[in-house]
Amino acid sequence: MSQPQFAGIIAYPITPFNADDSLDLPALRAGIDRLIADGVHAIAPLGSTGESAYLSEDEWTAAAEASIRHVAKRVPVVVGISDLTTRNAVRRAQFAEQAGADAVMVLPISYWKLSEQEIFDHYAAIAQAISTPIMVYNNPATSGIDMSPQFIARLVREIDNVTMVKESTGDIQRMHQLRELSNGEIPFYNGSNPLALEAFCAGATGWCTAAPCLIADLTLALYRATQAGALSEARELFYKQLPVLNFILKGGLPTTVKAGLKLQGHDVGAPRRPLQPLSAEQTERLRALLKAVA
Amino acid sequence: MSQPQFAGIIAYPITPFNADDSLDLPALRAGIDRLIADGVHAIAPLGSTGESAYLSEDEWTAAAEASIRHVAKRVPVVVGISDLTTRNAVRRAQFAEQAGADAVMVLPISYWKLSEQEIFDHYAAIAQAISTPIMVYNNPATSGIDMSPQFIARLVREIDNVTMVKESTGDIQRMHQLRELSNGEIPFYNGSNPLALEAFCAGATGWCTAAPCLIADLTLALYRATQAGALSEARELFYKQLPVLNFILKGGLPTTVKAGLKLQGHDVGAPRRPLQPLSAEQTERLRALLKAVA
Amino acid sequence: MSQPQFAGIIAYPITPFNADDSLDLPALRAGIDRLIADGVHAIAPLGSTGESAYLSEDEWTAAAEASIRHVAKRVPVVVGISDLTTRNAVRRAQFAEQAGADAVMVLPISYWKLSEQEIFDHYAAIAQAISTPIMVYNNPATSGIDMSPQFIARLVREIDNVTMVKESTGDIQRMHQLRELSNGEIPFYNGSNPLALEAFCAGATGWCTAAPCLIADLTLALYRATQAGALSEARELFYKQLPVLNFILKGGLPTTVKAGLKLQGHDVGAPRRPLQPLSAEQTERLRALLKAVA
Amino acid sequence: MSQPQFAGIIAYPITPFNADDSLDLPALRAGIDRLIADGVHAIAPLGSTGESAYLSEDEWTAAAEASIRHVAKRVPVVVGISDLTTRNAVRRAQFAEQAGADAVMVLPISYWKLSEQEIFDHYAAIAQAISTPIMVYNNPATSGIDMSPQFIARLVREIDNVTMVKESTGDIQRMHQLRELSNGEIPFYNGSNPLALEAFCAGATGWCTAAPCLIADLTLALYRATQAGALSEARELFYKQLPVLNFILKGGLPTTVKAGLKLQGHDVGAPRRPLQPLSAEQTERLRALLKAVA
Repeated sequence: MSQPQFAGIIAYPITPFNADDSLDLPALRAGIDRLIADGVHAIAPLGSTGESAYLSEDEWTAAAEASIRHVAKRVPVVVGISDLTTRNAVRRAQFAEQAGADAVMVLPISYWKLSEQEIFDHYAAIAQAISTPIMVYNNPATSGIDMSPQFIARLVREIDNVTMVKESTGDIQRMHQLRELSNGEIPFYNGSNPLALEAFCAGATGWCTAAPCLIADLTLALYRATQAGALSEARELFYKQLPVLNFILKGGLPTTVKAGLKLQGHDVGAPRRPLQPLSAEQTERLRALLKAVA
Repeated sequence: MSQPQFAGIIAYPITPFNADDSLDLPALRAGIDRLIADGVHAIAPLGSTGESAYLSEDEWTAAAEASIRHVAKRVPVVVGISDLTTRNAVRRAQFAEQAGADAVMVLPISYWKLSEQEIFDHYAAIAQAISTPIMVYNNPATSGIDMSPQFIARLVREIDNVTMVKESTGDIQRMHQLRELSNGEIPFYNGSNPLALEAFCAGATGWCTAAPCLIADLTLALYRATQAGALSEARELFYKQLPVLNFILKGGLPTTVKAGLKLQGHDVGAPRRPLQPLSAEQTERLRALLKAVA
Repeated sequence: MSQPQFAGIIAYPITPFNADDSLDLPALRAGIDRLIADGVHAIAPLGSTGESAYLSEDEWTAAAEASIRHVAKRVPVVVGISDLTTRNAVRRAQFAEQAGADAVMVLPISYWKLSEQEIFDHYAAIAQAISTPIMVYNNPATSGIDMSPQFIARLVREIDNVTMVKESTGDIQRMHQLRELSNGEIPFYNGSNPLALEAFCAGATGWCTAAPCLIADLTLALYRATQAGALSEARELFYKQLPVLNFILKGGLPTTVKAGLKLQGHDVGAPRRPLQPLSAEQTERLRALLKAVA
Repeated sequence: MSQPQFAGIIAYPITPFNADDSLDLPALRAGIDRLIADGVHAIAPLGSTGESAYLSEDEWTAAAEASIRHVAKRVPVVVGISDLTTRNAVRRAQFAEQAGADAVMVLPISYWKLSEQEIFDHYAAIAQAISTPIMVYNNPATSGIDMSPQFIARLVREIDNVTMVKESTGDIQRMHQLRELSNGEIPFYNGSNPLALEAFCAGATGWCTAAPCLIADLTLALYRATQAGALSEARELFYKQLPVLNFILKGGLPTTVKAGLKLQGHDVGAPRRPLQPLSAEQTERLRALLKAVA
């Protein structure tokens, strides 16, 4: 495997909104600063956690530019540029590249079911429009499209700047297959929080996660333990943080992470409608979970 | 059951594009004229078939306005106003109402999974912003959200201007349940083409379908036969058109209907990328299927 | 389509047990007499409803013999001979044939997943051992094996005495496909109670059902209405009995039908453990449902 | 966690048949001797791999007795006693206990879907009839019943001699949940071969597997590496044997393991019909896979 661009904890910031539902860029910058101060290895704005799908085109552009500029090469930035149409995904990819992104992440999005050829050509069109490395992102639960390991391996093999894979199905066998299909040459990143321990054990290069917004130290410690081969310690660290990981996943990442940030004193507003803020009852549950690992 | 606004064949036009991927409004108008001339009972622009999800906001607005104006009350118009955010769905609903729509159709769209309360409030916010009747649209295959008959019945019961249901799961039991839950008071429309015979037999008020773009006479004849209680004739008519219905569903409605229109001499352009035009081989198959029912 | 052996209502009796869990053959005979008196068109002992899977080999043999003898050619008898091993399924088929069965019904049963070749050879081995007509039975919910319409059509085409198909998936599209694949030549029977109306509308030859044990007159009236093309009447009859059909399906047929028979004054014992008798609360619900259609 | 009775590699022997389809007890004994010589930590006859579901009652009894006697306390024996009826499962459990089994394994088997109360009472009836420890076995792919971790934890909590859990869904989250629900007190065993690495990483007590019939040394080495915290070595060992593990799982364990044993010079006959011997082509594939790890 060629040296991947980044390894370890790839942190997904939320996108803060003001009370009038407009973008809150100062809060966005503050969130990035906290993640970098905590020591995460890369920042991934405008992913699922960043409510990218709920932003207007102008908002997406403003958030992308502000994020890339504010990180300012302190760590690598991988920008989510997914869009339902190929035309707009290309536009976003080009914008991200020009603004200085280190990589772009592409989730194919379904309304009408796409054939593999349609998905392939979507990636190819984006790849041809930029020279920045591309991370393939598979997450059928949000996108409605499930790419097989065989198809993903083909994307990496046949399109030059498709170089990384983020797998979010939570099915560890997908990672086994990616490894076998590429003789271990494709760097794969885990996007399923409750699979963090096992993905690292199976050889994942990194963990793409919103959890560092709330518990950065635990995610980093888990990564270090697995890299050091300290399996018992890694297992303890994992089971310690698992209740938080499960909670934020099941409640929806923007919803729960925004609630958690507020509990930690950072006002980042509510998720955008139709998403609603976490209920009072669930917020108390989150408070208890965060306290238990503090 | 109070008298529904429209019954029978509710036709879904495609949205034509020029060679440069811009909207082709003259072709859109010509398509509407053909459907009305063929005798369909209502027109439903900007549904799934109309590639609504793939349009920019300006394109959506232009297509909605052109469609409503051009129908000009010759038949009722039900406009698809679905959007991922509540804010924009409200905007579209208000626009459609002001432009003269007879009803709006609302499909809740998922990126992050929505709770029933989030879906309910999404409908409630749209309903409060307009006085036009709303058709609830359930289609998990495209939207990623599956609303139970119990929840749909609650929407109709609790929100005044939610008055109709379009069910596209293809599961006839959903229709049985809607009928039982409402003592037959909720008008339900079938959105699954290969279920057309059975839905009418089970009491569906209408059939929401793109098939009339290609085979309007057969869809209308099936409706008339079921209304007349001519079961044997209805069965024959259904099995005759079923190969076409299955083909256009499986290949994706915009893709296959646009290919079929071209075969019939109407140039409406290609579907928008990442969707691709129907392959030459599949186009030949469609030609044969259409010829068999001509 | 060659004339099928039987059409209409194919009734599935339960298998009564004494208080000591032994077979109650007098009650079995009485149940058969009631069904024939009610006018059903065929009797199908030792199906899923008959708890065939829960009987010892000796019990199966005794129940099969008693059933066939007691029907005594008053109506056709189709005997369920399914078994996990090919060897024993053959034995049962031969026994049924020698005892005078008019047809046998074969459900392939899975423990280890079977390949299509293994399923085909299972049917072929049974078919070769007898000359009695065979009804293919597809019911993945109980058997764990789902045979596609394409595969079922192949069984009918390639094995001489496989002549009928019972489809219990509840997916009406399977019936459409069977009809298309055979140009209407394969007689198909519906095994999903809540699909009774639509299956007849789609051309089903018969309805394989345990419902006649409790509401024979309604099932027969539905059949007659669909055969007469009286669609409105058929729809009313169907919706009238649908609550009972749904209840007995969801609660498990042996469990609910035995409870219903007891409510009607016929003591047929409990289902065999691990199956348990219907709870008191559910029994009251069934009592109300039966009263509503009496 | 109280000290579990056995840990590590729990090996599942196949059940050999003679050419006339009768039990081959000498070959059964030889297979047990090989496993013990190879160093496995326990033997589990009459599981899924042992084609228990395909045996007559007399065959089951003979195989159980021969297995327990021949192991002769050299390692613990856990006997699969599953049956569709509670009555016969109790009989088998009592027989196994009297013959000297160290534990019995119970998979609830579905024909009619069972309620949780019916499953609970099935376990309770077996547990009451013996004093031998019981291993709960969850394997919806073969049994058609999926027990939730919550329900399994209840079985362990409320029934005294239910003390171990074998999870074969392949979903690592089930193991996480069992650990969380019991504060790590329930010993869980992994029954999904391609999850062997991750299950041990997540804290599994043992691996229930037929793989030792063919590659005992590799399975044992993987266990030792994970116990020693040698994560890199464990990963290498796992990926080395994974192609074999996947192959024997996908082809059906009795089918593929019997073919592999024949390749290794041990004639154990074919699986029982409707199961068929591995095809020549697949046998060559297995030969290559085994050679690659020899």
